[in-house]
Amino acid sequence: MVEQNVLVPVARIREFTTEILVRMGVPRDDARIATDILIAADLWGIQSHGIAHLKLYHHRIKVGHQRATTDLQIVKESPTTAVADGGNGMGQVVGFRMMNLAIDKARQFGMGMIAVRNSSHYGAAGYYAKMATDQGLIGMSVTNARPAVTPTFGAYPLLGTNPIAFGAPTDEPFPFLYDAATSIAARGKVEVAQRANKPTPAGWVIQEDGSLPTDSAQILKDMVTKQAALLPLGGPGEMMGGHKGYGLGTMVEILSSCLQSGVFLSGLTDFDAQGKPQPLRIGHAFLAINVENFLPLEEFKKSTGDLLRELRATKKVPGADRIYTAGEKEYYRAEKALAHGLEITPGLQRDLKSLQKELGLEFDLGF
Amino acid sequence: MVEQNVLVPVARIREFTTEILVRMGVPRDDARIATDILIAADLWGIQSHGIAHLKLYHHRIKVGHQRATTDLQIVKESPTTAVADGGNGMGQVVGFRMMNLAIDKARQFGMGMIAVRNSSHYGAAGYYAKMATDQGLIGMSVTNARPAVTPTFGAYPLLGTNPIAFGAPTDEPFPFLYDAATSIAARGKVEVAQRANKPTPAGWVIQEDGSLPTDSAQILKDMVTKQAALLPLGGPGEMMGGHKGYGLGTMVEILSSCLQSGVFLSGLTDFDAQGKPQPLRIGHAFLAINVENFLPLEEFKKSTGDLLRELRATKKVPGADRIYTAGEKEYYRAEKALAHGLEITPGLQRDLKSLQKELGLEFDLGF
Repeated sequence: MVEQNVLVPVARIREFTTEILVRMGVPRDDARIATDILIAADLWGIQSHGIAHLKLYHHRIKVGHQRATTDLQIVKESPTTAVADGGNGMGQVVGFRMMNLAIDKARQFGMGMIAVRNSSHYGAAGYYAKMATDQGLIGMSVTNARPAVTPTFGAYPLLGTNPIAFGAPTDEPFPFLYDAATSIAARGKVEVAQRANKPTPAGWVIQEDGSLPTDSAQILKDMVTKQAALLPLGGPGEMMGGHKGYGLGTMVEILSSCLQSGVFLSGLTDFDAQGKPQPLRIGHAFLAINVENFLPLEEFKKSTGDLLRELRATKKVPGADRIYTAGEKEYYRAEKALAHGLEITPGLQRDLKSLQKELGLEFDLGF
Repeated sequence: MVEQNVLVPVARIREFTTEILVRMGVPRDDARIATDILIAADLWGIQSHGIAHLKLYHHRIKVGHQRATTDLQIVKESPTTAVADGGNGMGQVVGFRMMNLAIDKARQFGMGMIAVRNSSHYGAAGYYAKMATDQGLIGMSVTNARPAVTPTFGAYPLLGTNPIAFGAPTDEPFPFLYDAATSIAARGKVEVAQRANKPTPAGWVIQEDGSLPTDSAQILKDMVTKQAALLPLGGPGEMMGGHKGYGLGTMVEILSSCLQSGVFLSGLTDFDAQGKPQPLRIGHAFLAINVENFLPLEEFKKSTGDLLRELRATKKVPGADRIYTAGEKEYYRAEKALAHGLEITPGLQRDLKSLQKELGLEFDLGF
């Protein structure tokens, strides 16, 4: 019976994830780190960055796009800054360690910033920002990604979806936690539309003739052949601010590559000129700011809390349910999942069982 | 003859601006700083933030919304950070000095960040980012502003247009220089449409009934009575990413107020509860990052230059002129204005002459 969604206790899916990663060759301590980051995305309802990626990571490790062991090296360091090389290991392990380094530096010196080269997909950028807010600091993280988004007035994928994550502690049970691509939507959302046989909203994607296609299946084909690209936040042209999303995506690309002599744009390719698999060589940046250098943490938290509460109390337009602030929906989703279990779709059930079989892992997932 | 645009040599308009500011009571050294920042905006083609504001600043100083003299105080400081109080003086003077402080800290310690309270409108945020790039550093600045932009699912002005400015040095004659509001458009653009008797593009503004009005004159009235608000980058609702612009605007509001115990959202009002004029108490943040802490500056510049050149070489959609990168258009506009003079509209000619008369300044503007 794998034809309906099932709820699985979070502790069980967490244990499973760690064991699967260990079978893939990830050292156990690293597997625990990666598990926490993957499960966090699922808890927040960002399934595109959660355990659905286990199958992809397994493939990428097998093929040689990334390594199961993470030989992370600091190549340059100062009291407030560092440049690191991720050795093309697990992006989550790189991210976790380097955000912790940024936090340590910020605790000591007020600010900490780390630029990382030769890493891999690191999951939900917001996790790293939240590592800082959990400790009463402001956190930021950005990452580049494989080409997908076009510059304004073009229709060719060059920029990654290049998310910006920013977190600030509050006096509420959850922080302000912003984590979003600098494109309107990510490729994963077009895939969701295609699986549901639904059109893609006009304006998410641009075709090389300048048109705004809606046929989800065709879009996915055209994105592979680079005849279509995701549009930056703000849409096509400059009328609705498309140049702003494009500029923010470029800012992320610069911060994620140029500070550590990394590759960028079309250089982010996981096949070499001879068509042989190679690491994607993703870059990230992590920033931590120690609030206590500016004012007492409790005062800051009260201030951010008041600010968010005022936003949420805004008069709504007719038909609107309520006003949210960033990170709030994710918090409530996580509360629900922790109480009732994580919802696993039939497709993901099949993927996890097939991984389990391939890796020879005895484990009762309950479905 | 004030009924056509005239070209005025930049040196002359610069001298005029300084003299006018001095007559307003701004100390001469401060007036020179403010002049450079105002003229920079005009050179870049951002007329909304240039000398057109002289009339407004004069009014605000007279009424008591801001002070001509800038009693700037550092209220807390560490090697990498500071909190400053702008004494409700000239925003440009506050911004110039505090960005320089951030740069000094970054030169010494790798990073520098300054949070400022009780300041005034500081002009084009990009100027402060460019102060850093001119010295081979990465620069950022953000500022809050009077309520104008609604949270997603609302139609009530709470957030300011809250710009993000980011600059990175390159090996080209100009830096990467991003400077944009986190709303789709600023109120000034609706005013431009109204003066030209043109409709406002549907989607820039939302009405309290949830509709997207286009009648520019009516929009301006409804924004005053708070029955309409600017929409965040990404537009209404979440379909095209409006929650992203809203989230980025909130990030700017937090960075511009909560780090220095400042006012925010509806607290940014220049009349008190009794209707008496008071300072607006704007907040800013300035960040500088020393590239040399990460890699040799020349290597960084080559890398950012290569990245921007690759973006500009993107295949264009039919009908598109060319692909730009942020700060490029502004550079070319400045080159042109420096060669041929700044173009002054009839309306601005009248405003400047009337200011000149009111302040008793003898000066031959050439029109």
